[in-house]
Amino acid sequence: MAKKPDLDDFRVPFFDGGKKLKPFDLTSVDCSAKPFSMGSKDLDRMRLSEVGAALDELQEKLHAQRRQRVLLVLQGMDTSGKDGTIRAVFHEVDPLGLRIVPFKAPSEREAAHDFLWRIHAQAPMAGELCIFNRSHYEDVLVPRVLKLIDEDECERRYRHIREFEALLADSGTTIVKCFLHISKDEQRARLQARIDDPTKHWKFDASDLEARKQWDDYQQAYSVALGATSTEYAPWYIIPGNSKTHRNVMVAELLLRTLQALKLEFPPAKESLKGIKVE
Amino acid sequence: MAKKPDLDDFRVPFFDGGKKLKPFDLTSVDCSAKPFSMGSKDLDRMRLSEVGAALDELQEKLHAQRRQRVLLVLQGMDTSGKDGTIRAVFHEVDPLGLRIVPFKAPSEREAAHDFLWRIHAQAPMAGELCIFNRSHYEDVLVPRVLKLIDEDECERRYRHIREFEALLADSGTTIVKCFLHISKDEQRARLQARIDDPTKHWKFDASDLEARKQWDDYQQAYSVALGATSTEYAPWYIIPGNSKTHRNVMVAELLLRTLQALKLEFPPAKESLKGIKVE
Repeated sequence: MAKKPDLDDFRVPFFDGGKKLKPFDLTSVDCSAKPFSMGSKDLDRMRLSEVGAALDELQEKLHAQRRQRVLLVLQGMDTSGKDGTIRAVFHEVDPLGLRIVPFKAPSEREAAHDFLWRIHAQAPMAGELCIFNRSHYEDVLVPRVLKLIDEDECERRYRHIREFEALLADSGTTIVKCFLHISKDEQRARLQARIDDPTKHWKFDASDLEARKQWDDYQQAYSVALGATSTEYAPWYIIPGNSKTHRNVMVAELLLRTLQALKLEFPPAKESLKGIKVE
Repeated sequence: MAKKPDLDDFRVPFFDGGKKLKPFDLTSVDCSAKPFSMGSKDLDRMRLSEVGAALDELQEKLHAQRRQRVLLVLQGMDTSGKDGTIRAVFHEVDPLGLRIVPFKAPSEREAAHDFLWRIHAQAPMAGELCIFNRSHYEDVLVPRVLKLIDEDECERRYRHIREFEALLADSGTTIVKCFLHISKDEQRARLQARIDDPTKHWKFDASDLEARKQWDDYQQAYSVALGATSTEYAPWYIIPGNSKTHRNVMVAELLLRTLQALKLEFPPAKESLKGIKVE
């Protein structure tokens, strides 16, 4: 039997504090790889269901304890499967304990603040498992590709992001960040599928085709982002995502490991309640 | 075969615009009734799973359309099963399309505003299905029972609530409100179960026992609230809730009917996408 893969093999090396940005080479990870697959789609779905049930239990303890916070950041190119991942991974998890925050282009009011203002307002509170569907990273990636900010500003923003994430981490937030990694061919197929199926047209935005023309620029911008902001307290993981079931299983396994490491337990029983009879 | 029950038989009569508050007689509905049960717990769970799948489909259309909004308000005495209802009814529904808003006692900052300020901020936006786990009603019920506000103020607040809900409804929000109705005996059993099981102590708050001492006052305050704020655009339904599976099925059926009435469809295909080949 093959050696069980290690999630940490897919972790982006930590930012080393150097002055210059060191992009992470995305081509070093095969989008079509399925290291965490159980061998077939059906087996993957079974495993996902198992892990989902375990996540549900851990999340209940997180909620009961109301002390720690967990933040999962999902990023990726258009059609990389952010929505699908949320749907699949959290299917078994009590919706009460989840908060999913989708970030779109900032509103006029949001844009009138610093770029982390609207993000900070949505940070998880004690006992919460929060999922950012897109995030503060968009506010560097998009302006960078559109050349609205230069490299210096880009560098400054990534420093602000590192410090912001350190603040959250120091306050009891466990952060894990996933880059859903698909190939350009896979994106073509997924966009084409949306165009060919009229019932999926609502998911389709003409700007997706524009962004696709800048595929290489976005990959480059992501390389910089990943290299500049993977830290011990907020690591980035590259999730090979051409296979949807693999992507789902891998994100679920990563979150499972993350929650297990928190050693969550139900709060201790209250001695004061012993023997009380309700009237 | 018995006549199929009608959800509207459990709807609180609409507020008639009269000057005096007309309490709804809660004792007229049997908490132990199971009119929407399929005959056994197992059959109820099967039905819930069916309805859940239908809700998931409808919610996807709501989300795709991004036009209408839906607000489900859940109220009830402590242990009446608000959390359990959310967990069970929305198990099949994509968490992406849900937003669950729990309301606790107002914070100092919230209390420094009018009582609807924090509620308004959480109103559903286009395409959202929002669930209020407790709501603005707490901000009348609790102060009324604690005698912090008099009957006149109570009346004024219910007028403000009617007008606030009318504003939401006029702006495309479909509102449905459920009172989860349990008996005093059932509450005793549920509180006792929490006390007797140390792993459930975290759910238990000593103030629950205090509130229980004021059971009759709360029932009376609810009677007033229900009578004063059941309207055509924001009706209240009484959900017999001593049986958990019945409660879940009934809330699910009510929401299913509500969403079906919206005649939700996926947005029309975009002609402009016809024949496009992605490069």
